[in-house]
Amino acid sequence: MAGKNGKMREKSLTMDTLNPQVKAVEYAVRGPIVTKAGDIERGLQQGQKHPFTEVIKANIGDSHAMGQKPITFLRQVVALCSFPELLDSSIFPDDAKQRARRILQGCGGQSLGSYSASQGVDCIRQDIAVYIEQRDKGVPADWDNIYLTTGASDGIVSILKMLVSGQGRSRSGVMIPIPQYPLYSAAISEMEAVQINYYLDEDNCWALDINELHRAYQAAKEHCHPRVICIINPGNPTGQVQSKKCIEEVLHFAYEENLFVMSDEVYQDNVYSPDCQFHSFKKVLYEMGPEYFNTVELASFHSTSKGYSGECGFRGGYMEVLNLDLEVKAQLVKLLSVRLCPPVSGQAAMDVIVNPPLPHEPSYLQFHKEKSAVLGALAEKAQMTEQILNTVPGIKCNPVQGAMYAFPRIFIPPRAVEEAMSLGISPDMMYCLRLLEETGICLVPGSGFGQREGTYHFRMTILPTTEKLKVLLEKLRDFHIKFLKEYASLEEPKR
Amino acid sequence: MAGKNGKMREKSLTMDTLNPQVKAVEYAVRGPIVTKAGDIERGLQQGQKHPFTEVIKANIGDSHAMGQKPITFLRQVVALCSFPELLDSSIFPDDAKQRARRILQGCGGQSLGSYSASQGVDCIRQDIAVYIEQRDKGVPADWDNIYLTTGASDGIVSILKMLVSGQGRSRSGVMIPIPQYPLYSAAISEMEAVQINYYLDEDNCWALDINELHRAYQAAKEHCHPRVICIINPGNPTGQVQSKKCIEEVLHFAYEENLFVMSDEVYQDNVYSPDCQFHSFKKVLYEMGPEYFNTVELASFHSTSKGYSGECGFRGGYMEVLNLDLEVKAQLVKLLSVRLCPPVSGQAAMDVIVNPPLPHEPSYLQFHKEKSAVLGALAEKAQMTEQILNTVPGIKCNPVQGAMYAFPRIFIPPRAVEEAMSLGISPDMMYCLRLLEETGICLVPGSGFGQREGTYHFRMTILPTTEKLKVLLEKLRDFHIKFLKEYASLEEPKR
Ligand SMILES: Cc1ncc(COP(=O)(O)O)c(C=O)c1O
Ligand SMILES: Cc1ncc(COP(=O)(O)O)c(C=O)c1O
Repeated sequence: MAGKNGKMREKSLTMDTLNPQVKAVEYAVRGPIVTKAGDIERGLQQGQKHPFTEVIKANIGDSHAMGQKPITFLRQVVALCSFPELLDSSIFPDDAKQRARRILQGCGGQSLGSYSASQGVDCIRQDIAVYIEQRDKGVPADWDNIYLTTGASDGIVSILKMLVSGQGRSRSGVMIPIPQYPLYSAAISEMEAVQINYYLDEDNCWALDINELHRAYQAAKEHCHPRVICIINPGNPTGQVQSKKCIEEVLHFAYEENLFVMSDEVYQDNVYSPDCQFHSFKKVLYEMGPEYFNTVELASFHSTSKGYSGECGFRGGYMEVLNLDLEVKAQLVKLLSVRLCPPVSGQAAMDVIVNPPLPHEPSYLQFHKEKSAVLGALAEKAQMTEQILNTVPGIKCNPVQGAMYAFPRIFIPPRAVEEAMSLGISPDMMYCLRLLEETGICLVPGSGFGQREGTYHFRMTILPTTEKLKVLLEKLRDFHIKFLKEYASLEEPKR
Repeated sequence: MAGKNGKMREKSLTMDTLNPQVKAVEYAVRGPIVTKAGDIERGLQQGQKHPFTEVIKANIGDSHAMGQKPITFLRQVVALCSFPELLDSSIFPDDAKQRARRILQGCGGQSLGSYSASQGVDCIRQDIAVYIEQRDKGVPADWDNIYLTTGASDGIVSILKMLVSGQGRSRSGVMIPIPQYPLYSAAISEMEAVQINYYLDEDNCWALDINELHRAYQAAKEHCHPRVICIINPGNPTGQVQSKKCIEEVLHFAYEENLFVMSDEVYQDNVYSPDCQFHSFKKVLYEMGPEYFNTVELASFHSTSKGYSGECGFRGGYMEVLNLDLEVKAQLVKLLSVRLCPPVSGQAAMDVIVNPPLPHEPSYLQFHKEKSAVLGALAEKAQMTEQILNTVPGIKCNPVQGAMYAFPRIFIPPRAVEEAMSLGISPDMMYCLRLLEETGICLVPGSGFGQREGTYHFRMTILPTTEKLKVLLEKLRDFHIKFLKEYASLEEPKR
């Protein structure tokens, strides 16, 4: 089309003029494999033929999508808050009504439809502080340090944004575990911060290794200014639960090197191994004494999306900050206020999670039953996943101690590696694509999370129902064996 | 505290090491005046004495907080989606149940608790496309171009983020109206883009002036690369509704200068003046012919927060994009996927707004009554605000044609201006602070939105109830007269 001076009107936004930081972002959990799985699903619905009748999505920690039922009490409270006329109805228990009334009291005009303060509804922040004190056996929590967020994602991105500055060698460096949850690498690219990889110790159940932290830090110091260390515990994608000793070492290291600590604890309720226990970074810091507790800057993150409730769609979450400079705190509130507030229904959901029915309340029994059922099933599936995967030649899976994922190492034959290289894709991507095409199973290649060079993995969730998960694992085993055979039996490439 | 080598552990995050772009952000709608209003409110509750008994907040477009009741039908649908057991209850009308069933069908595991696709729930996107086609009298809308967002704020920030690139003279420039809604300036600072101000024509009811656009563009071209023009229609903070002719001129200009167009149409349902009508940028573009409609890149934004529903807390919204390059579209989806998805309950609320009860459905009458009551009251208050303000000497207020705000020009005596300068604050900030302290009325100074140098304004919402608004306007009048007298009667400053 002809514009000014008879020129064609060009697109103003193309791949060439797109923000290069946006281009640099990668986010595998919803990457090409997932798009392809969606296409296949639609194809199946329209009668297309595939060697399977159903796509099984084990690519994302999305409990309800995999059939988990909502916790009744939580949904009752949210429904009551959404339509307060129900407060007069006899179909809801009193404890749900009491929670809803309290939340609505905290909302402008007593409506979920008002913007809350940018930091969140006051009484919900107070409930969260009480929850944290109980969780941490009395370590004090101040609700002034609590910020509601739009899922944990929003909190993580906001804190990172505060910490990024400088140019060249003084550019902020962010230490993240490898393998990591790719929100971290995506946010780091978007902000042009420097990603500093520290590798988790696969041979030691994905433990944090303090020597590796030192190595990564020292190497990074040559070309950037390391300012923050991120830890995911329990781990995504790796499913480990860090020991108290590991956490102490990290905190000591952060203290010594003046690093800000971000502890992603969205899986704090997802611990399955009887030998493991969740230790909050905050509690460990407290126990290290006031010299640590009163100085180390810490932000920890929680979410409605995980745990036993699995309420991802509500986009609820909170963060607690410790030892944040007062002026910086005001800046954080200002930054958050630009987007006005986190969804108030998500805040309400968060409130229920931190303030569930007590033993003397009418909803306690049902709540307790539902919660135990979810966590019990997850524990069972965690074990089953590890067991079955470890029966497959060429697959090695660490115990799934917590979170919702297994991240097994897979052996990919050299011929398959070569083939993938010639296709310009990573070998585990090729593996996952073929798995999807041949079995309908949707996993995420390890390369989307990061892994030591020359090693290959995939991440799978343990969220499908026990039956479906068993089918998945068996199909996966058969596929893997076939895959190994196929590439083993191929002749040497012709020269 | 002593760290490594006996050094004290310093804070890693201070005002000196904070991201300078975060520091640069300003957001007056929740700025110091609002903080102060909160302090006074708490003081009043604790029995502190003030020359008033109540703080009246007219600082933010937050309808429910100001007493507006939710639309029953919308809340019924959200409650049904939140707690689907209610689908069996006889207390809800069938049309609400039908809407809820349809939304749940579109959710993974039929639960509001699943992550939706990053672009939003398919059937909701389809409903939005149908709504847009109806609104625009048949102009085609493709649901592939619809993206659900976390409030309009999220969509606006995401599109801006795509468009920011380059360094120095090739850095992206973003044209925004002055006065503006400060989300724009805040996002521009945060992304280190270049803000290009074009001034709305106060003497002409805050109309867009094409000559001013040319002036601003030509001047900016010298030091940056103007890439995008933002328009807010109906206007915040200025309350005007742009004519079709103005919109045509803007679109022609954008076509000629190869600019991306962002049209913020969150107040599309808020038009009060009988002589005004809402024209969507998309429809006007369509009517300019295929040469325009098939080329100009446009993103338009809508929200659950405004209109007649005023559901701010749900953080619902959508954007429609036109003529976006296909690869860029994939990049946009990738960018959105990092934060997983917009709140699904907000998506549900958006669905009800675009798909309200039809005349033959059981909820129609009540819905229609509620909607008309809200919009009728706003129209009345818009007129009353303009009228009363224009009776005050030294205040001049344009007609409040739409949106929810008046942005009157106020005369501030030179002595008051000097006093403010000596205090290091803007004169309208001093004015609003004194207004708050003396009357309990909370407004936002014009300087928070931008204004021509040497002119002063404030923004007030028309959201308080009619009675309260009348009280507010009368108190404001008395304050203003007193303020003028006080500074007029002061002697010349001593030298
Ligand atoms: C480790 C970790 N952090 C944060 C998130 C973000 O979750 P949300 O934003 O839904 O709270 C996830 C989601 O999977 C996660 O696994
Ligand atoms: C012009 C304009 N755009 C966008 C927004 C953002 O609203 P939300 O994010 O609540 O949809 C507002 C809120 O006041 C506004 O006035």
